[in-house]
Amino acid sequence: MKLSETGFLESGGRPAGAVHAGTPAAQLSLEGRLLRRLLSSLGDAPVQMTLWNGESVFTGSTDCVAGIRFADRATLLKVFANPDLNLGEAYVDGSIEIEGDLVKLIETVYLSRSKARAPWFGGRSRIARWLNRTRRNTPSASRQHIHQHYDIGNDFYRLWLDRQMVYTCAYFPDPALTLEDAQVAKMDYVCRKLRLKRGESVVEAGCGWGSLALHMAVHHGARVKAFNISREQIAYARGRARELGVGDRVEFIEDDYRNIRGQFDAFVSIGMLEHVGRDHHRELGRVIDRCLGRDGRGLLHSIGQIPGLPLNPWIQKRIFPGAYPPTLSEMAAILEPHAFSVLDVENLRLHYALTLEHWLRRFEDARERVRGMFDERFVRIWRLYLSGSLAAFNTGELHLFQVLFARDRSNEVPWTRAYLYEKTAG
Amino acid sequence: MKLSETGFLESGGRPAGAVHAGTPAAQLSLEGRLLRRLLSSLGDAPVQMTLWNGESVFTGSTDCVAGIRFADRATLLKVFANPDLNLGEAYVDGSIEIEGDLVKLIETVYLSRSKARAPWFGGRSRIARWLNRTRRNTPSASRQHIHQHYDIGNDFYRLWLDRQMVYTCAYFPDPALTLEDAQVAKMDYVCRKLRLKRGESVVEAGCGWGSLALHMAVHHGARVKAFNISREQIAYARGRARELGVGDRVEFIEDDYRNIRGQFDAFVSIGMLEHVGRDHHRELGRVIDRCLGRDGRGLLHSIGQIPGLPLNPWIQKRIFPGAYPPTLSEMAAILEPHAFSVLDVENLRLHYALTLEHWLRRFEDARERVRGMFDERFVRIWRLYLSGSLAAFNTGELHLFQVLFARDRSNEVPWTRAYLYEKTAG
Repeated sequence: MKLSETGFLESGGRPAGAVHAGTPAAQLSLEGRLLRRLLSSLGDAPVQMTLWNGESVFTGSTDCVAGIRFADRATLLKVFANPDLNLGEAYVDGSIEIEGDLVKLIETVYLSRSKARAPWFGGRSRIARWLNRTRRNTPSASRQHIHQHYDIGNDFYRLWLDRQMVYTCAYFPDPALTLEDAQVAKMDYVCRKLRLKRGESVVEAGCGWGSLALHMAVHHGARVKAFNISREQIAYARGRARELGVGDRVEFIEDDYRNIRGQFDAFVSIGMLEHVGRDHHRELGRVIDRCLGRDGRGLLHSIGQIPGLPLNPWIQKRIFPGAYPPTLSEMAAILEPHAFSVLDVENLRLHYALTLEHWLRRFEDARERVRGMFDERFVRIWRLYLSGSLAAFNTGELHLFQVLFARDRSNEVPWTRAYLYEKTAG
Repeated sequence: MKLSETGFLESGGRPAGAVHAGTPAAQLSLEGRLLRRLLSSLGDAPVQMTLWNGESVFTGSTDCVAGIRFADRATLLKVFANPDLNLGEAYVDGSIEIEGDLVKLIETVYLSRSKARAPWFGGRSRIARWLNRTRRNTPSASRQHIHQHYDIGNDFYRLWLDRQMVYTCAYFPDPALTLEDAQVAKMDYVCRKLRLKRGESVVEAGCGWGSLALHMAVHHGARVKAFNISREQIAYARGRARELGVGDRVEFIEDDYRNIRGQFDAFVSIGMLEHVGRDHHRELGRVIDRCLGRDGRGLLHSIGQIPGLPLNPWIQKRIFPGAYPPTLSEMAAILEPHAFSVLDVENLRLHYALTLEHWLRRFEDARERVRGMFDERFVRIWRLYLSGSLAAFNTGELHLFQVLFARDRSNEVPWTRAYLYEKTAG
């Protein structure tokens, strides 16, 4: 996806007039020195930075994979002051242009920049944590956060998601699978991990557009209560349940996971934990505990990270307010106080990268229609979010953990995992 | 395994003259009241407790699965003061006798007793933690702790371990497998999880009698450096390397894991982490970090628990001084500061229970020879340890986590786990 063709790539990534990052400071303008500091804060990534007047800085160690062009001095100062937030903001309002491939650009920054010494306020100090603190997800704040992202219109999501509108990591037993098939394979894989049996009851926390709940009812004969606080998603899911004739077996409830009541055979949550927030992990643990009896089991599927740092502030502002991808130790700590034993953890990071490749390609194919529905700013926000997420999963900046658990006393657990890989699926 | 046949089971677990645990205190002797308090501290487990004078207490809710007979008042007082330690001590010196099946007795106590409110000093308060604190495993203390358990004579272990002397959880793809085959299957499974290739280098922390290191060299063409501080185990392992003609590819080093130097393709540690102790987890993380390059990967296999409580004090005193079985969140936290991503976690708890069934059966078959080598006290210590461990894995008091990891940036990771379950093993 080449966003701007300025002859950058054709010239081998080294346009005439560019200044090596190692050029003595005396030979650089004040702005050039800011650029160099900025590049250094990005781990001296092989990225060429160019000013409005053509002055340019790049690292000397390797060919540049992409470039960033600043429209004016105000943009440079804004980005310099807080690159984690304002590189994204400047891209959205068009005051920087990307030369080359946006995904590769973000990947190279992730790979160059050490997580340990993230620039400015991205560090691990108490001040950094305070500045980047995740917003508290009270029930009303959660409703607002979820509304902001998931209620922007089913028509928009339909343009680039699969037919069943699954907005979480797919599972590709074979990388050549279509996105549609990989989402079905994921739902089936989750049901098999849970050893879901006909007539069993399931509670789902955060059900998106309802695809998994419907899959469980239609293909596994389960009775499902599915919770979600997104109004548009719940309305859509109810419509599909009626179409599929499983309205008696699947109940879609527009409510917060904290209000789940009753006992179930299985608990499942796919891609909601990221929205729960670290401050509310214990609450979620208590909800799971009261949902499940002595042979209850569950599956938590969540974006994760290593180590636990605040989410990028631009993503928090524009995409996922209140979100926090947990570490695996934090996921395990949700379950441990309640005598749940983890049976199986699988890291599906590269499957999420492939899922995002599909989404990004479909999104770009539909970008004119998206622009028509919204505007160019919206297109750029979503392009940056999808590209940045793809880069993050490709480079190990983000992970995807599927955690299967049961009561620690229960011996109703599979003997090995071979049944997950038998050709004759059940 | 019936340790004492006193007609207990034949009478349906309710001998005449026994007093119901709910009998009013006024009708009980002082000793009877102590017995009742003791039974209550064991979660009112269905166990009949009998004094030297025949006075007996049991819980009324269900038939007793086993009984404990106290030889004298001193024993009762000792056990009452600290049952976690002194039930074991009294069993070893013969001042209590078990009526019925020892494994079932311990299982029923585990199942009756809530982990959260363990009696006396088994709780989670700061005082409880201090009283039950794990001894610090300095290098010299570790050497002493390991010597105490592993250097009591290879001839003894040969009586009841498999031919290759593997003293960790086996893997039974089919529960009907022999112990010998299941230990080979475990070693092969570990090599497959690590995707070990011919010519690759491996470092093993805590190698026991060397079986895995030798397996890796003989069957996978790996070059292995294997560390252990048990003198007898290292001597035995070196002898086997010579016999197998792989002395050039496997080096057995009598040294502490903290002294591992050099870089390797893979790190593996099977059943050593339990001996590292919580205070030294960070040190182990730093060792793994400096061992592995950017495509390095590793596997930690350890007994674990949920939640993290101090090890039973009798086991600490008689079997594993300094040991602490970690929680999964603690295992993940060893890896997270060093940019390792967990790829796969498998809980093999029931495989350890089955392994222990084999060991206990073989041990009992060889008990006369063991008594001849040592004495009756030794037989009772080992019977209680093996029985208690079997009960602990059977009831979910203990778990077994295999944690596979790689550098979080590395994309040299398997696409799915299907390759682990293909019939044509590699």
